[in-house]
Amino acid sequence: MDTSVWLQMLGEFIGTLVLVLMGDGVVAANSLRKSKSEGAGWVTIALGWGAAVTLGVYASSFLSLAHLNPAVSIAMAVAGEFSWSLVLPYSVAQIAGGIVGAALVWLNYYPHWEETKDPATILGVFSTAPAIRNTVWNVFSEVLGTAVLVFSLLVFTRGDFTDGLNPIVVGLLIVSIGLSLGGSTGYAINPARDLGPRIAHQLLPIKNKGDSDWGYSWVPVVGPIIGGVIAALLYLLIPITQL
Amino acid sequence: MDTSVWLQMLGEFIGTLVLVLMGDGVVAANSLRKSKSEGAGWVTIALGWGAAVTLGVYASSFLSLAHLNPAVSIAMAVAGEFSWSLVLPYSVAQIAGGIVGAALVWLNYYPHWEETKDPATILGVFSTAPAIRNTVWNVFSEVLGTAVLVFSLLVFTRGDFTDGLNPIVVGLLIVSIGLSLGGSTGYAINPARDLGPRIAHQLLPIKNKGDSDWGYSWVPVVGPIIGGVIAALLYLLIPITQL
Amino acid sequence: MDTSVWLQMLGEFIGTLVLVLMGDGVVAANSLRKSKSEGAGWVTIALGWGAAVTLGVYASSFLSLAHLNPAVSIAMAVAGEFSWSLVLPYSVAQIAGGIVGAALVWLNYYPHWEETKDPATILGVFSTAPAIRNTVWNVFSEVLGTAVLVFSLLVFTRGDFTDGLNPIVVGLLIVSIGLSLGGSTGYAINPARDLGPRIAHQLLPIKNKGDSDWGYSWVPVVGPIIGGVIAALLYLLIPITQL
Amino acid sequence: MDTSVWLQMLGEFIGTLVLVLMGDGVVAANSLRKSKSEGAGWVTIALGWGAAVTLGVYASSFLSLAHLNPAVSIAMAVAGEFSWSLVLPYSVAQIAGGIVGAALVWLNYYPHWEETKDPATILGVFSTAPAIRNTVWNVFSEVLGTAVLVFSLLVFTRGDFTDGLNPIVVGLLIVSIGLSLGGSTGYAINPARDLGPRIAHQLLPIKNKGDSDWGYSWVPVVGPIIGGVIAALLYLLIPITQL
Repeated sequence: MDTSVWLQMLGEFIGTLVLVLMGDGVVAANSLRKSKSEGAGWVTIALGWGAAVTLGVYASSFLSLAHLNPAVSIAMAVAGEFSWSLVLPYSVAQIAGGIVGAALVWLNYYPHWEETKDPATILGVFSTAPAIRNTVWNVFSEVLGTAVLVFSLLVFTRGDFTDGLNPIVVGLLIVSIGLSLGGSTGYAINPARDLGPRIAHQLLPIKNKGDSDWGYSWVPVVGPIIGGVIAALLYLLIPITQL
Repeated sequence: MDTSVWLQMLGEFIGTLVLVLMGDGVVAANSLRKSKSEGAGWVTIALGWGAAVTLGVYASSFLSLAHLNPAVSIAMAVAGEFSWSLVLPYSVAQIAGGIVGAALVWLNYYPHWEETKDPATILGVFSTAPAIRNTVWNVFSEVLGTAVLVFSLLVFTRGDFTDGLNPIVVGLLIVSIGLSLGGSTGYAINPARDLGPRIAHQLLPIKNKGDSDWGYSWVPVVGPIIGGVIAALLYLLIPITQL
Repeated sequence: MDTSVWLQMLGEFIGTLVLVLMGDGVVAANSLRKSKSEGAGWVTIALGWGAAVTLGVYASSFLSLAHLNPAVSIAMAVAGEFSWSLVLPYSVAQIAGGIVGAALVWLNYYPHWEETKDPATILGVFSTAPAIRNTVWNVFSEVLGTAVLVFSLLVFTRGDFTDGLNPIVVGLLIVSIGLSLGGSTGYAINPARDLGPRIAHQLLPIKNKGDSDWGYSWVPVVGPIIGGVIAALLYLLIPITQL
Repeated sequence: MDTSVWLQMLGEFIGTLVLVLMGDGVVAANSLRKSKSEGAGWVTIALGWGAAVTLGVYASSFLSLAHLNPAVSIAMAVAGEFSWSLVLPYSVAQIAGGIVGAALVWLNYYPHWEETKDPATILGVFSTAPAIRNTVWNVFSEVLGTAVLVFSLLVFTRGDFTDGLNPIVVGLLIVSIGLSLGGSTGYAINPARDLGPRIAHQLLPIKNKGDSDWGYSWVPVVGPIIGGVIAALLYLLIPITQL
């Protein structure tokens, strides 16, 4: 691979690291015992994840296209806005960033894991779990949430945003998905955001952790990819007009 | 109708679908049993509806004028900013978008309806109901909220917003109306947002649902239309000046 | 007075009406019995007041300078940024807007006053009251909060904001003052915001209301004026530089 | 020192004063007894600190570079973006601003200290304390939080923000760090924000205060400086590219 691809991978790695550090971080801040913001509530989860994505986009956008999400990379390729040859390098870098970001969350809250006795709470800091386990409808939620994400991102590419505003609008989109659609499966809507931290959960010697729920792990990978592709196809059907 | 009208209707359909999906979605996320954000509170309702409208405006603005609200379309026609011949096509598309958006909320939270035993809670995800049932004052609240909405939108048309900022300001306007005036009737302020989901509630085989409260259904239709027209007329009375 | 002054007064009237309608509205939404957002908490108060000021500035800025606050008008005159001859017309229009805005809050929540039995809660919707009654320190809080407000507004006049961003930044300033300094006296920081609604409270036939606490009413008038003047004088002492 | 340095110090003094006044203010508003927003929760803490930094940046940016943080000044010097000779003057002005800002918080809530019986709560208004006292991991948290802060600020210097947007993005960054990483040590991430108020706590005759916990005071000084330097070094390793 030429240098440019390595630099883009570095951008995706840094951006997804920041995204998962700040995103899983807000879940840790809410749910780990003795955290100063224990029980701060869903509004902080939704705002925290939105800000996490905004910061991840800023952090990566000087090196890469700031997808930070394999489902976005695949969908952008389907929509003809991204080279298929970059999908795999981007995805690898994104997942690697997710692993390291999750490990940093573990370290930031190191003394708190011992205080937190419930393994499901601990896994919940890293990866998503559905509110009601139901394969069909859990997949559907991830498909729908990611379709809203990708369709909106594609619409934004037509926009003519003021400098620096785009990452804020993307963050607002994440806030909205979290507030409105996230109550069912916890809105992974990003394979790297879920799989990366799950790998970290599996590998790291976290106090009081239980198993990594690999049985569910394919849902937040397959669902987002399907949702992203559907959104890209729908988007291609809409005639490009400008009033 | 020529192609342009169909494309504008498509824009209104998509935008209102997104608006109701994300708007009714945040109510579902707050009130359905076992949702991860159950009981997250009014701040998430208000922020979620604001973000819903912002995303709806972005999603439609490449195809249509992004009214997403029959009361806005009528008021814009009264104010001379919109063709009367488009009011009916826009309104039909908006209500259709509202129906489909509400149906998607139903699907996103499919396993949660069975867990939610209270029919009023279930209807409340779809359509508004007043805190205290009182026809005169419920109508007044919808008139006032929509007047603030439409007057502000008309003022914004005089503005010279930076690219991409306008939908955010419109979302902030919705947040404000929700926080400040919404405690009485739940701020429908949009016939498509209330009637579309009520039709969906009537038609869909939702577990544990009760009746669709058609006796109240005219209030969030008539109130917003009156409020929008009043705001347009007041706006026309103000001389256009620029300091 | 020439036409221009009447139009500017109209702008201040409309803007302060919107400011108080949405500002007192969020307090009503939080504290009136059976409101859908009863007990929603201080975060909604602070965000609601911030959005109220943003919307008030937008609504008035095509007709007037959008002070919406006699303490701001006086301070701008002290700072040499505003004509002394307009201070009185502006202030009268602002207080009149405050009265009408508060009356609209009363009407929006009309059925809720009968349900709310505590007179202090009812007065609290209209005007401020200190957390701990202590004349010296209550005045100090109003002085300090208004000094932060006016100093920041004066700094913003040196700025070169993107179109449409200025009212949002002003709203953020109000959010910050509310979150950080408002816990002591409820941050009137604006004579029109406190006196106008207090007059409305006195005059309107509100169910369950008690007296209008005129003994405290001078604090949120005098404190803000002193604070604004101090900020203007401090601002004049700072040399104008540009890095 | 020439005039320019004194003016820059004035800017850092004013900016850090505003930052600490509004930042410590939101903690006071949340935790002092009888405050109107007592117990308002972590979402207000995080939003309040973010707004505090935004306002501090605006207030100082006409006179200085708006670092408002010795760890930022040092890191900017390491990154080659700031003169080493200004690090000491900037830091002195920042800490002085922190002392005066904290004193103003004391005065704004003057009658509330007598009502607040817990010395740890009172110290917590001024300076940070860890959720779980553990030197190694407390330092780590401050290093990590400040590294995210400084790395992002350095990335922003490459950006081309719309006029007036930059301080808002910096505030959002602070909100994110607070929501996501702040649960462990309370995110000082700024020696002036912690040391200045701790000096004020030591010197002022605050009712019900206890000791100033000088044993912990080096952590929020040394941790941020290390974190800032690490971020600057990492940033220097990344090739400057532009897609």
